[in-house]
Amino acid sequence: MTQRPLTVDLNADIGEGYGLYDFGCDGELLEVVSSANIACGFHAGDAHTMRRTVERCLSKGVSIGAHPGLPDRLGFGRREMAASPEEVADWIVYQIGALQAFVAAAGGVLRHVKPHGALYHMASAKPEIAEAIARAIRSVDSSLLLFGPAGTFLEKAALSQGVSFVAEGFADRAYLPDGRLAPRQLAGAVIEETERAVSQAVSIVKEGRSVAIDGSWAAVRAETICLHGDAANAAERARQLKQGLEAAGIKTSFPRK
Amino acid sequence: MTQRPLTVDLNADIGEGYGLYDFGCDGELLEVVSSANIACGFHAGDAHTMRRTVERCLSKGVSIGAHPGLPDRLGFGRREMAASPEEVADWIVYQIGALQAFVAAAGGVLRHVKPHGALYHMASAKPEIAEAIARAIRSVDSSLLLFGPAGTFLEKAALSQGVSFVAEGFADRAYLPDGRLAPRQLAGAVIEETERAVSQAVSIVKEGRSVAIDGSWAAVRAETICLHGDAANAAERARQLKQGLEAAGIKTSFPRK
Amino acid sequence: MTQRPLTVDLNADIGEGYGLYDFGCDGELLEVVSSANIACGFHAGDAHTMRRTVERCLSKGVSIGAHPGLPDRLGFGRREMAASPEEVADWIVYQIGALQAFVAAAGGVLRHVKPHGALYHMASAKPEIAEAIARAIRSVDSSLLLFGPAGTFLEKAALSQGVSFVAEGFADRAYLPDGRLAPRQLAGAVIEETERAVSQAVSIVKEGRSVAIDGSWAAVRAETICLHGDAANAAERARQLKQGLEAAGIKTSFPRK
Amino acid sequence: MTQRPLTVDLNADIGEGYGLYDFGCDGELLEVVSSANIACGFHAGDAHTMRRTVERCLSKGVSIGAHPGLPDRLGFGRREMAASPEEVADWIVYQIGALQAFVAAAGGVLRHVKPHGALYHMASAKPEIAEAIARAIRSVDSSLLLFGPAGTFLEKAALSQGVSFVAEGFADRAYLPDGRLAPRQLAGAVIEETERAVSQAVSIVKEGRSVAIDGSWAAVRAETICLHGDAANAAERARQLKQGLEAAGIKTSFPRK
Repeated sequence: MTQRPLTVDLNADIGEGYGLYDFGCDGELLEVVSSANIACGFHAGDAHTMRRTVERCLSKGVSIGAHPGLPDRLGFGRREMAASPEEVADWIVYQIGALQAFVAAAGGVLRHVKPHGALYHMASAKPEIAEAIARAIRSVDSSLLLFGPAGTFLEKAALSQGVSFVAEGFADRAYLPDGRLAPRQLAGAVIEETERAVSQAVSIVKEGRSVAIDGSWAAVRAETICLHGDAANAAERARQLKQGLEAAGIKTSFPRK
Repeated sequence: MTQRPLTVDLNADIGEGYGLYDFGCDGELLEVVSSANIACGFHAGDAHTMRRTVERCLSKGVSIGAHPGLPDRLGFGRREMAASPEEVADWIVYQIGALQAFVAAAGGVLRHVKPHGALYHMASAKPEIAEAIARAIRSVDSSLLLFGPAGTFLEKAALSQGVSFVAEGFADRAYLPDGRLAPRQLAGAVIEETERAVSQAVSIVKEGRSVAIDGSWAAVRAETICLHGDAANAAERARQLKQGLEAAGIKTSFPRK
Repeated sequence: MTQRPLTVDLNADIGEGYGLYDFGCDGELLEVVSSANIACGFHAGDAHTMRRTVERCLSKGVSIGAHPGLPDRLGFGRREMAASPEEVADWIVYQIGALQAFVAAAGGVLRHVKPHGALYHMASAKPEIAEAIARAIRSVDSSLLLFGPAGTFLEKAALSQGVSFVAEGFADRAYLPDGRLAPRQLAGAVIEETERAVSQAVSIVKEGRSVAIDGSWAAVRAETICLHGDAANAAERARQLKQGLEAAGIKTSFPRK
Repeated sequence: MTQRPLTVDLNADIGEGYGLYDFGCDGELLEVVSSANIACGFHAGDAHTMRRTVERCLSKGVSIGAHPGLPDRLGFGRREMAASPEEVADWIVYQIGALQAFVAAAGGVLRHVKPHGALYHMASAKPEIAEAIARAIRSVDSSLLLFGPAGTFLEKAALSQGVSFVAEGFADRAYLPDGRLAPRQLAGAVIEETERAVSQAVSIVKEGRSVAIDGSWAAVRAETICLHGDAANAAERARQLKQGLEAAGIKTSFPRK
């Protein structure tokens, strides 16, 4: 639509530990990303983890977002469940508020919201859930950005609710020819080679497209790229992705500053 | 200290249901009280209950406070547990934030915080817990009032942290001669007769004292009186208490407007 | 198939409180039913409620069953959620075991299992979930009876796993012409008049059929009739149902003694 | 009392993961221990972890015990909390039952119970809690052994309730001269050097005593030695401990077979 910028945001889900349990490689990811999605105590995270994670983000200059999930700690928020739009809206409001308090207490500003796991998928595919999420975000703070996949009901809902939408792309997940993510069950849906992931990220940012799972070109619009933190080599891959982007002349920074 | 005003706040703990479970008599209490302490999802309450309860308060013109508790739904937050000051502070920040978001979404303002159950008692008796609570409140919003028992470590902590403190008294609990609440185990600690409860409330507001459990006078300082909602006759007693105060020339309204 | 007995079991879901929260009218239902489905701490109930409820059942001579649900206390187990058959099997084993320990400690015998809420519906409609449940029950105790709706995947799974199945019918829910329950959304799906509920129960027991929602006859096979405890008039209706059955010459007792 | 056997049990707490969260080094510990204390879903563990852990124990020939804890997942059961003896008894019954079902389903036998964390300490120091635990165990299965520290209220309660008690010693924790564990806060309370831990274990088994924290001899009675799995070098130390015991002519096996 507009001239494509040579800047992209790198985001990662962090603060997903709980009590004594650690998860992922937050410390290393925070050296790489420009924005962080912090778990809010429903699917992962707890009050202590949230405070510590907010402080780490602020000390690293990483922009802070809320990463609300379904109330399903056992399933890590990855399990779809029947929920009314009103229930989803309430869960979003609650979790944003809880995180916002830690950000305020630490002297920072909450900048964005990215739904987690099954909620991300429900928000993309179900218009009434998408609308509930966008409305909930606006009701708490209309300046919050909403991260999500381009071209979905979530983007439409953001538009109709007047919430600024930031399209998210993936470096390590293959796309279908129509620009949607290839389902994980498909062979080749997960991109294992770091080199290919880097080249997909560069292609998305520079050209707004990616080689799809069938070899054709898929249009992929993204202002932020998601780094996964739960793979074995997550930290190393994150570093290489950032280096690859920089080598291609792309800066990483939080969008819409 | 200053001339005693002929105004007092009446507060009650509400929004203590959970999922399908109801609790107390919120609807009736909201016709009587001038301020409400809303459970925040740790010891009681959930996101849906919180939204609905905030909306009810706003529609009734009842001032809204947070009622944070220990993370112990099974024990309804009435069970003391070992917790570091830092843990308590995190729990307070989390719960205030969650409720604040619902209040903001509904166009209201969160005005006060009152710790619940075992946390109320820990806050009164343990200086490091009291200090953690006052500090946590200030870190989120320094304009929040803190409700608690006069003369305790909680009041001291509020003072030292620069948080406005509102002393709370009880109409239906007997006092010791030194002005502290008589422990529930003592015979006569709970005042069953509504007439006596009304007269104790009037005496506290007008004279700053109450007949203690041993028949002597106890000095009792209170700007807000707590109504309990979980007794059999809670709603009726609440109405009579308000009428009794009015009959004695005492208005009920939120303090420090 | 065989000559229809003039005996039927009456069952009810009980022990669905949690912590300080009460639910339903257990005391009155236990005067009426011949078997009880006790919540096991996932969707409702807790260790204390379970112990007390087991003791009440034994003192009333009511046969004890487990009422396992999905791990969703907030949604009271009524919310469908994505779950693998293996996950469901694990949840069933866990909950049966927990209840069995209380029954053993009180000197009783656990006799049956009835899945709760969304799990009941998932078990009826999804063969792999049905099979997981039947297999889980058999793995813990192959003498346990499985309560469920006749003609569903749950009955097939019980048969194939060698678990004794007890068909459950409803007095206060209308049937479709094909013998399945009419979905709650349909007008007339819930039978409000006690007289009609009694007559449906009698018709099911005596004739193996019921007037369907469209006025035709539906074949309905049932050895146990479910009493709902969460309606306003639940206790009174339960008493009238039992009286109505007795007036029709039908005794109530646990099946397959 | 009797001639000291040249056999000792080695036990470890395992199955303490939760959902996606891993904990400890179960696989390596199961190569070393003769008995395992499996978390039961209150302080750690869940239905899936329990099933898998039971199966691993059976495949390794490791004797299975229940490791019930307080209902405090956030605090990992290490936080003391106010609880009545009856509440504690109910929590014990529930957790034993849940694990027993998985053990039965896998064709094994539950052999012992060891309280976890704060419950272990409460059981040692508070006679009414100790008695509640012993009574709860007996009520579910009177053949279960109870693991705990010698000379405490827990041992007394086991004796008075007719529950077989197995005294537990520690290789990596220093003792006070009177045979009790040195509190963690004391300098030298935790034994860091593996060599010293091995020699303490050998001394306990062979001579019934250990060099105390002040250099004197402390009498230490133990039929089972606890291996901690959450230290950095836990797996390696476990292997060396077993080798050290074998080198001293001590066999490891479950007690009272």
